This record gives sequence, C-alpha cells and structure tokens, in this order.
Amino acid sequence: MKNLNIGMIGYGFMGRAHTNGYKRVNDFFKLDYRPVLKAACGRDAVKVKEFADNWGYESIETDWKKLIERKDIDCVDVCTPNNMHREICLAAAKAGKMILCEKPLAMSAEEGVEMCEAVEKAGVANMVWYNYRRVPAVTFAKQLIDEGRLGKIFHVRSKFLQDWTISADLPQGGAALWRLDVAAAGSGVTGDLLAHCIDTCIWLNGLIKDVSAVTETFVKERKHTLTGKIEKVGIDDACIFNCHFDNGSLGNFESTRYARGHKAQYTFEVNGENASLSWDLHDLHRLNYFDYKDEGPLRGWKSIHISDSDHPYLKHWWVPGLNLGYEHTFVHQVADFIEGLQSGKPASPTFRDALETQRICDAVLKSAKTKQWENVGR
Amino acid sequence: MKNLNIGMIGYGFMGRAHTNGYKRVNDFFKLDYRPVLKAACGRDAVKVKEFADNWGYESIETDWKKLIERKDIDCVDVCTPNNMHREICLAAAKAGKMILCEKPLAMSAEEGVEMCEAVEKAGVANMVWYNYRRVPAVTFAKQLIDEGRLGKIFHVRSKFLQDWTISADLPQGGAALWRLDVAAAGSGVTGDLLAHCIDTCIWLNGLIKDVSAVTETFVKERKHTLTGKIEKVGIDDACIFNCHFDNGSLGNFESTRYARGHKAQYTFEVNGENASLSWDLHDLHRLNYFDYKDEGPLRGWKSIHISDSDHPYLKHWWVPGLNLGYEHTFVHQVADFIEGLQSGKPASPTFRDALETQRICDAVLKSAKTKQWENVGR
Amino acid sequence: MKNLNIGMIGYGFMGRAHTNGYKRVNDFFKLDYRPVLKAACGRDAVKVKEFADNWGYESIETDWKKLIERKDIDCVDVCTPNNMHREICLAAAKAGKMILCEKPLAMSAEEGVEMCEAVEKAGVANMVWYNYRRVPAVTFAKQLIDEGRLGKIFHVRSKFLQDWTISADLPQGGAALWRLDVAAAGSGVTGDLLAHCIDTCIWLNGLIKDVSAVTETFVKERKHTLTGKIEKVGIDDACIFNCHFDNGSLGNFESTRYARGHKAQYTFEVNGENASLSWDLHDLHRLNYFDYKDEGPLRGWKSIHISDSDHPYLKHWWVPGLNLGYEHTFVHQVADFIEGLQSGKPASPTFRDALETQRICDAVLKSAKTKQWENVGR
Amino acid sequence: MKNLNIGMIGYGFMGRAHTNGYKRVNDFFKLDYRPVLKAACGRDAVKVKEFADNWGYESIETDWKKLIERKDIDCVDVCTPNNMHREICLAAAKAGKMILCEKPLAMSAEEGVEMCEAVEKAGVANMVWYNYRRVPAVTFAKQLIDEGRLGKIFHVRSKFLQDWTISADLPQGGAALWRLDVAAAGSGVTGDLLAHCIDTCIWLNGLIKDVSAVTETFVKERKHTLTGKIEKVGIDDACIFNCHFDNGSLGNFESTRYARGHKAQYTFEVNGENASLSWDLHDLHRLNYFDYKDEGPLRGWKSIHISDSDHPYLKHWWVPGLNLGYEHTFVHQVADFIEGLQSGKPASPTFRDALETQRICDAVLKSAKTKQWENVGR
Repeated sequence: MKNLNIGMIGYGFMGRAHTNGYKRVNDFFKLDYRPVLKAACGRDAVKVKEFADNWGYESIETDWKKLIERKDIDCVDVCTPNNMHREICLAAAKAGKMILCEKPLAMSAEEGVEMCEAVEKAGVANMVWYNYRRVPAVTFAKQLIDEGRLGKIFHVRSKFLQDWTISADLPQGGAALWRLDVAAAGSGVTGDLLAHCIDTCIWLNGLIKDVSAVTETFVKERKHTLTGKIEKVGIDDACIFNCHFDNGSLGNFESTRYARGHKAQYTFEVNGENASLSWDLHDLHRLNYFDYKDEGPLRGWKSIHISDSDHPYLKHWWVPGLNLGYEHTFVHQVADFIEGLQSGKPASPTFRDALETQRICDAVLKSAKTKQWENVGR
Repeated sequence: MKNLNIGMIGYGFMGRAHTNGYKRVNDFFKLDYRPVLKAACGRDAVKVKEFADNWGYESIETDWKKLIERKDIDCVDVCTPNNMHREICLAAAKAGKMILCEKPLAMSAEEGVEMCEAVEKAGVANMVWYNYRRVPAVTFAKQLIDEGRLGKIFHVRSKFLQDWTISADLPQGGAALWRLDVAAAGSGVTGDLLAHCIDTCIWLNGLIKDVSAVTETFVKERKHTLTGKIEKVGIDDACIFNCHFDNGSLGNFESTRYARGHKAQYTFEVNGENASLSWDLHDLHRLNYFDYKDEGPLRGWKSIHISDSDHPYLKHWWVPGLNLGYEHTFVHQVADFIEGLQSGKPASPTFRDALETQRICDAVLKSAKTKQWENVGR
Repeated sequence: MKNLNIGMIGYGFMGRAHTNGYKRVNDFFKLDYRPVLKAACGRDAVKVKEFADNWGYESIETDWKKLIERKDIDCVDVCTPNNMHREICLAAAKAGKMILCEKPLAMSAEEGVEMCEAVEKAGVANMVWYNYRRVPAVTFAKQLIDEGRLGKIFHVRSKFLQDWTISADLPQGGAALWRLDVAAAGSGVTGDLLAHCIDTCIWLNGLIKDVSAVTETFVKERKHTLTGKIEKVGIDDACIFNCHFDNGSLGNFESTRYARGHKAQYTFEVNGENASLSWDLHDLHRLNYFDYKDEGPLRGWKSIHISDSDHPYLKHWWVPGLNLGYEHTFVHQVADFIEGLQSGKPASPTFRDALETQRICDAVLKSAKTKQWENVGR
Repeated sequence: MKNLNIGMIGYGFMGRAHTNGYKRVNDFFKLDYRPVLKAACGRDAVKVKEFADNWGYESIETDWKKLIERKDIDCVDVCTPNNMHREICLAAAKAGKMILCEKPLAMSAEEGVEMCEAVEKAGVANMVWYNYRRVPAVTFAKQLIDEGRLGKIFHVRSKFLQDWTISADLPQGGAALWRLDVAAAGSGVTGDLLAHCIDTCIWLNGLIKDVSAVTETFVKERKHTLTGKIEKVGIDDACIFNCHFDNGSLGNFESTRYARGHKAQYTFEVNGENASLSWDLHDLHRLNYFDYKDEGPLRGWKSIHISDSDHPYLKHWWVPGLNLGYEHTFVHQVADFIEGLQSGKPASPTFRDALETQRICDAVLKSAKTKQWENVGR
C-alpha cells in the first residue's frame, strides 16, 4: 500500500466533505494507495489548526504557495472560493502535483482552458469534484443509458432548487457567504448549482450545442460582509435555460435559490424512445424508471431502491435495504481517482471534461445578457 | 332495451351513491337493460320527497312493505341501517323481487343464512354492495393473482383507518350516526369497515380458516341522539385480527376510527412468492406492483396509473392519464349486475358470497370476546 | 327550474365529456336551470345518431348552421377541431345563442379578437372549456394564492407531458388524429397542452409579459389519413418556453408528446416568499403545500387529500377520503356557468379571458420562429 | 482526550458497522474520549486478521476469553451470534469491562436477567445496539411524542418486512446463515427483526402489557450448512402479534422474511388524539407527520426531510437537504454512549432497558405456542 499525501487548501464545508472521503475510502475499497492527511492550509492559522486537529491532518500551512512547494505533498486539493482556483491550480501543476479541484473548475472557460493546458503540460493527474456522478443511483442511470435501454433521447430536464437566500436581510460576501459575492464566485446559481446539473446531464446525454437563457436577481442590493456597505448584488439568483444537445434532444434547466420549500432539490429526468428515468437528490437512494417494453397494463414508474450489491458501488457497503447518504459520493470519487492512478485510465471528470461545463455556463450567462440563443464555444 | 325498475329503500349516503350508479350506467356501458328510478322509500315523507325530486325518482313510498308489493318494481335496493336488512330482504324475496343489499349483508351469519336461503328459494337475482371490488385497480389485482403471477401467497394485510369519531362529544345513534349505535349497526368498525377488507381479501386470496382478534372501545359512553341520555357505547371503535387463510397464508387486518390523519385509508397488500401488490383507497387509481422476475438491479415497486383502455372497466371511460373516482365503483357494479342478468351468470358478491364475510366478522367478534382463536364456522 | 337547451356540435371525446357535465350537474348542484340535451350535430349522420342515442339527445343535425338557426336551442357547445371554432362562434353569436367553446378559443389571437367582439356585441353568455381550473385542488390553489398565503411569487413552472405520438408509424389528420394535422389544429402541443398550463398559471399568477420559446418536431413526416400520402408534419411535437410574468416572477413551461412514461402529466408549481404549492393531474385529488411559517423542524411538504367538505366543490359530492376524478371538472364548469347566468356575473374563463392564453400561444410560436424574446401583444 | 480501548468480538456485518461507528465519531462529535481499535477477536485467525487489517485494529485474538482478560481493553463489543451473548457478557462484566452488546440482548428474558444483574453488580457501563433509535427521524419522533404533541395515543403499528429467505434452496446455519439456525439465533424474525420494532415502540409509547401472537415457518426443512443434512427449521419465518400497551393503546406488529419486494421495510406509525407520525427505514431521512391542529382545509401528511441543523444529530453533519444513511446510527450511538460516560447518565438502551424487549419477545413466542394471550412477565 502506497501513501498518497494530501495537501488540502480550504477548510470549509467542502474541505470537510473531501477529507471525510480520504479518511474512509480504505475501510471500504481495496486500493493500492492510502490517502494520508499531510497538511491543511488556510489563511487563518487558528481556524485551520482547529480543522487539522479535528480531522487529523499532520500539519498546517497558512500560505498555499508553501503547501504547493512541499516535497511531502503528492496531491493538492483546492477547496477555496472559485476566484482562487486558477492561480492555485496553475502553480500546483507547475510544481508537478496531482490536483483535485472543487467545482466549478474556473471563473470562465478562458481560465479553464489555461488550467487544462497547465495540467496536461505538466502531466499530472487531475479531477474536478462533480461528486453527484458518484451517487449510486446516478451512476446506475448512466449505465442504463449507455446500455441503450432508453433508445433515442428526446428530452432532458434538470433542476436545482433551493430557498436559503430569500431573506433580503442576508448579507453577501465573506467566508460564509462568498457564494453571494460575484467577485469571489463568478456567478450565482449558474456556477454553483446549474454546473452540477450540466455536468451530470452531459455525462448522461452528450454535449450541448446552443442555449437560450434567462437570469434574474430578485434581491438587487445586499449588505456586503467585508465592506459593511449596501452593495449591488452581482450574482444571478435564478437561471433558466433551454438548449439543444448534439444528439437532437431538447434540454430544459432551471436553478434558483428562491424556491420556497426546497433545500437542495436537485433533480433530473431523461425521456427516451423506449424508457425514461428520473432522480431526486432529496431521495438520492432511489432511481425512478419507466420501461415501455413492460407488458402494456403493467407499465408504470418503478421506484428502485438502490441498495443492492449489484448496484454501482453498493457491494462495498452494507446489505440490501440500507441507505447510503450524501457523503458517500466523495468516498466513491476518491476511490475512482485512485483506481485511475492504478489503471492509468484517469477518472472523470478531469479538468478537460469539466471545461465543457464551464463553456456551457459561459454561453448561458452570455445568452442571459444578449437575450439571444448562443452557441457553446469550443 | 328493457327497463329495470328500481325501488330504493333508504336515501342517505349510500342511497345517493347507488342511485348515481343506476343513472349513469347506460351512458358508458352497452347493456340490454336500463335502470329506471321508479320509487324511493323512507319513513320521512318530506325528506324522501326531496331525495326523489333531486335524483328523479318517479314516486315515493313511506312504508317499505308497500314498495315491495308494487307490481312496477323489479328490483329492491336496500340502503337502510343494518338491523333492517334481514326483514326487508326476506319480504322482498318472498315478493319475487331482485335484491341489491347494502353491505354488510346482515347483523350476523345466522341472519345471513336465512337471507341466502330466502333469495335462493325465491330464485331472485341478488347482490351485496361490496363496491370496492370494482375499483379498476382492485379488479386488476384480482386478475393478476388469478393469472398466477404472484405464485404461492404468503401474506395478506389490509387496513381501514379513519379518524372521525375521536371526539368524545360526538353522540351516537339517529339518522346520521346510526353507525355508532350497536342496536342499529350490530358492530362498529368490524361490520362497517373490516367487512370491506375481508370481502376484498377473500375474493383475492380465498377463504379464511381461523381468526384471533382484539377489539377496543376507546370512548366508553356517548350521548344517544334518540334518548338524549349518556349511554354505554356498544360498538367496537377498533378491531385488529390475525388469521390463517385456507391456502396457508397469514392475514393481518386492522380497522379503527381513531387513527388521526386518515379519512378512509383502506389499503391492502398481498405478498406472493414471485410478486407482490398493494393498493390504497386514497389513491385508488394506482396499483403498486413488484415483480421478482424483473432483472435484478432493475427490481422495484411500480406505481401503475390505472387509466388505460386495457385496464378493467377503463375502455368505457376517458383516455389514458385521466382518473376515475369513488363513485365509478357503483356504476361498474350496476353494469356487472345487469350483465349477470343477461348472461345468467350472476355477478358477485351474491348474498351467498357475502355470507362468508359475515361468518368471518362473527368469528372475529367472538374471538375478541373469548380471547381465543376461533374457527370460521361454515 | 328553467330549461337550458343545449345544441352540441361535435361528438368526440370532448362531446362526451361536456355532455356528461350537462347530464349530471343537477343531481349534485342546486341550480335554477336544467341543461336539456336538445340536439347533437355532426356531419356523419350515422355516427351522430349513435352518439345522440347513447347520451339521450332529443334530435340530431348534420349541418351546424341549421343547429344554430333552431329556435329551441339556447346554448351552442362547440366541440369541433380548432379550425372551425371561429366560423361557428361568429354565427352562433349572431344568432343570439350562448356559446360554450372548447379550448383553445381560436387558431390565433387575431381570430380570438374577432370572436370576443362578436359575443360581446351580441351580448351572449360565453365561456371556454379550460376545465382544469375546476379541479378542486386547483381551485383551492387559487384560493390560497388569492388569500396572500404565498406572499410575493418568484417562480411558476408548469409542464404537460405525454408520450402517445412517439411511434413514427402513427398517421396525422382525420377524425381521430386531427390534433397532429396543422391545418385542423393550428399548432401541436402549444395549443393543445400548453394552453391548459398557460390558462391555469395566468389565472393563478397574473399576466405574462414576454416569452422565449423553442419548439421541435421530432418526426418530420407522417402519412396523412385523408390524402394517404406521406406529408410534412406542421405541428410542434414539443415546446419549451421561459417567460416573465407582469409581477416579476419567472415562468418555465414545457410540453411534449415524446416524454415516455407520461400519459397526461400536467403539473404546476408556484414558489412564493412564504409558501409554495404544487399539483399533478395524475393525482389530481391532492395538493402539495409547503408553509415556511410552520415551526422550523416541522417544516415539510404536505400532501393534502382534497376530499373534505370545506374544499372547493366537495360539499356537493361524497364524504372525506373519497376521490373525484377527471370528469367532475366539467360538471363544475357547467354549474359555474349556470351560476353565472343566475348572478349576472359570468363564470370565467369567458372568451375575453381565454383570449389572453391565445395571445401568449401566438407569442410562444412566434418566438420559436424568430429565436428572440417576444412580447405578448395586447 | 482519553482513549477508550475497544475489544471487538465478531467481525461480520455488525462488526463492520460498529467499527465504522468507533472510527468516525470523533470527526463529527466533540467528545472527551476517543475509541481506539485495540483488538479484534474471532475463531478463524485468517479471517479476523483480514478484518483487523482492513479496519485498523491493532491486534487480534482468537479466544474471546483472552480478549476479556487483556488489561488494555476498556470496552468489549459483543458481535457474536445470539447464543454466545450471555456467556461473554457475564465474563466481561466479571472482568470489569464496559460492554456494548449487539441486539437482541439474550436468547431469553431469563438469560437477560442474569446479564443485567452481572453488569449492575460489576458497575460497568453497558448498552445494547438497538441502533434505530438513533436514526434522526426516529429520535425526532420521540421528541415530538415526549413534548405531548400527539396527545393520548390510540394506536401503534410497526412492521419489519424482508424477502431474502423465500427460496427453499437457501440452507440454514454456519457463519453466513446462523440467523436461520434456531440453536444459534434462538428465534427467527422475532428476535432478529421484531426486536427492533419492539425496542423503538416501547421507547416511543411505553411498556406492553400483554400480547397475542401467531408465527409461521413457511419452509419447514432446510439443509444445514454445518451438518450437510436436511434438518427441520426451528425458527419463525413470520410473526404477527397484537398487544395492549400499558397506556391503553393497541399495538399491531408484524415481521416476515417472505414479503416479496421488501428488503428491510422497517416501518412504524403512531396515532394520537392530536397528531400522528410514521416512518420507514427505506426512506429513513423522512418523518411523516399529520397535525390535526393545522387549519381544516390545509390538513395533510407532511413529509419532513430530516436534514436541518435543528433536527437531532444533524448539526454535526452536512447542510440542509443532504441525506445521512444507515451507518450514521452507529456513530450516533457511540457518541451517546461516550456522552453517557462523561455525564454519568448512561445512554439507553442499557441491558436493563433492553431486557424489556426480551420479555416481550418471550411472551410473543409463548403466545404463538399456547395460542392464548400472554402477559409480559416482569
């Protein structure tokens, strides 16, 4: 068993989720590598120390450049706000580190291209944390589509609905609320939530050709945590877009943080000639499936409880009927990343794979401004 | 088209439901007979007149004996409280009338035997209004079981849960609340609600051999509407029983009027070797079906929307996706009764069929008293 | 009780549904008028006779102009394909008849304006059969919104998904399939299905300002039933549009006949500041409701079984827990139409109300062509 | 931070689940103790070594008596088949070790009494792994009931349905299938599955007074893995029982391994005067709640997604909308056990608490034999 020394930059929600993935993977998966929590990095020494102690990181850094220079780090995990991804990844690639970067890859496709070229030039293993591909029900959906069970695809629809920013009293910016600050996040729901929908759906159904979008910012001004002043809100609170996939199917995507009653209602549905399937993050352990080949009067939507050993990833866990949860997606992603190292066939999404989502997000945001259909640049 | 002249005794909730069945059947089913609303009968002339005018009955009677003597009546519909069923049915049979009797057939199996013998001796068509057999999803369940799709049956469970008598201030007895008065109703939930569960389940799974029951009366005394006095409550508020079916499967039945949140939560589930199915009156247009023969990872419970033309009764109605409701069960039962007249093969449940439910109810109530397992007498 | 003499033009699915509404309304609603099935009209004398006999129409006509001239007709019901609505309605208005017209009102807003002016000039009662407003759960949603329970509305989304035209072997045109023939139908899913979504949503949430749409015709050519030749398909198989409502909320609408597994999956959801609600035609007796004012840890989506006497229309029917179905919407609409006659306050949607949906459909179809946002003309 | 040295006896499914609980608890809960995986014990040295290496146990033992004697073990975890619980626990208590024993506590109440007396005499911390109390939704149900929100309780029903032993070809006995061997397991579904239902329901609703049960063994003979011979099956394949709780409410319990379509369908429902709640292991992150105090027309069953920081245990995990799974129940139980050590107020269920479930199981099995109601001995 070889060690895979992890250097974690950032210690927020994603820092915890990834770290949990590293710590648990070897208990459940037989692998040649064991992630070692070598160092955690953050600007606030007290807070990063607390994080490191809690999770068992061996050391801390307060300057990410130092972390990247360390000889004992194999793999840099980038969990900073989006506006830091590019700089860190470019430096990490240059230093010859493997990189696992939180999604979205970048602030723009332009940045993304630069980052792809950097990791490819450096020849370092790289991956973006689009974790929802590794929900077993989602992976199973991918298998069913790849086996051709749905036949020709006509429709894809995906939504990511939340309700946590409805109050106009919520400020923007700072450590806790950087997702509301356009300078740190780049965009609102488009990069934060729709990016997940897009990543999953292009994985399931292939690339998107063109888009027509509308965005809205319901609360126009919010106090900024850092300046203490009321400032214009630069992010999109909601975004809806329609699109054509390369295979001729129609897509309909929507995301908002103003859908009262939905915490993280991430859903998708795919309608094919022969079968359809749908999924909902709030019940992530189920896949809904309709098969037209069933006998006529017995046709119906099946709710498949994804907990059997012949479902993706499940043989590594418990027994039929017992649910996995959200955090398992990160364990799975670490396992797949390591298997990619072992096999030489990199786990997806690589930076290059994730660049496609970036391009679509760019086209979506552009279309929302031009009020025109926009082609996805490639 | 021949006329089938109906004489309706009683004009409450069931009087309305049956009448609606008679009035609508020919619009949707091609039949040789047309029910004609000849006369409605009730002791209160004003009220029965109002009922007759509303629904279009040609005449009224205030004495059921007169109704039965009328030459222009072919068919007597008995919608009175349970304690009147026997006397009216015996007289109607003697008068050579066809009889459609509201469930439960009688106050006891003993009464039921007498009533069966009377209609059989008289050779008159007869039926009991166990209407839920004619919910299309329930009829479809019967078809699936009869086709052997479930294989050997291991378990049947059925419940009928309500919550309308929880308040201790609710009185008992009188026109509106005779179901709470043991003198009029014979029993509480056993005859009123469990009788439906039993009728459906023995239709689906064959006869019951023995039972072990417990009943409870949560509110021990209620004001009686007729006497104005606080009187002991003689009915069962709740009844649970376990049983063996003749085929070796186990049954578990429960009914109560003290299950907060349930209006008419009538459900059943049947578990067989190869498949299982379940149904719920609150979503009566759906049948849930699990088939073990499905491919392993694709196994799941299917929710079948029973609205296609190849589902029972549905070709007579609208188009796929559009729901039928409660009242259609009575239309179906009238249609089947008439088709029974046409074919000479009587529609079930006849009095004789319904007697079996009576016997089981008797055994259930007896077991609740003796605290022993009781065989179903035959 | 006054008679309201009905002349029905057309005898297909909608002819049956409306007729059933007329026949049943007085059994359940206390009204001053009784619809009388005076005459049914269709070009095929044999078929219209069969229809008239089945439902009890007193007479038939094979020329709709004759029907309109008849003195004994008070009210003309227009159940023809869409391309006949205008001419019949103009003539009927001129003849001073009340008019109940099947939806969509017209082939275009231009036609619709002409029709509105005609009925208003003639001063005749008029209504369009957007029946889904009268699903009790939908009417209840309207009440909750009008009471201000949702607060400021942010999002409306509505879909109508079907799957019955996926086979390329299905022909277009003729009596059964005129909905696939652009000459008879005017458009595909936009006028047939989205019109329902639009009517309901503007009733719930006010007018729509502008739209951006995409349409698709997946099967480009189909055999035409009338010509026997393979012809280009002129209708839209699928249509998705985004929009702004006048109140600043965002709308997302989608309809298709290529969504495998959905028979008539008509749904809507409305997200407000304080509460959200959603509904689904496949379970039309339920309204889903989320109220942010509930205590924090007890917040959740409630599934309200709309069957109590304090729910809209329900006091006229059965008892709590027992479902209504699709056809009741037409009974309700007839009742409301008659109550409008009684009160002098016309039931909605009048032709004028329904014109708004026509305008939106026009803008949607235009946007799909121009690939631009289009304002809804008024 | 103090170490809590764990000695694990057994290394099957439960050995893994408990171990995972020990390893993860300090990442998520702030505690004064840290469980240390000191030793794993099993008779098969190769297999126990593999287990120990996988999970990181520092050492192994092949004789549980040696493990118990070790000075460096603070806490013995008993994950053996049921027939070993008594002997090991008595010895461990005598050796002054804390004991965490897998459920059911014992083969009989008689054994259980002996075990309670042993741990109480020794004064050692003790707990039984009825893990489902620590599903957040279940803990939340307990809170709601304890706050009096349901009012007087009328009904409790609980089921645990599985389908994995339907095939008659499945053998009994041995490491994998000891649950089918009466000598090792003591009983079938009663001790394995109903014990969970009973533990949860008496926690929620208080003690049970008397029971009436029926059991069934559908497959009468199975090949025994150890002897290779066809032997009589001594366990119960299915068990249904009715009961009275001390507070006057009625209970209905059922468990089987012959309910096709159910993997681990563990459910309960509690009906109170003012409110009702229900839960299902297959969707363990949801609690269904009906509150009669809601406004009349808005009453309905709410599906509460238990993932907010004000839900039990949730503040230790992720963010709203993201699900926990099965294994978290064990993490919670370890956390609560340790908090019990810290506070001096032992976490439940202690051996003494779990003895009550044993007594009820005994009464259930006795009633199934005597076919009488049996009081729960105390």
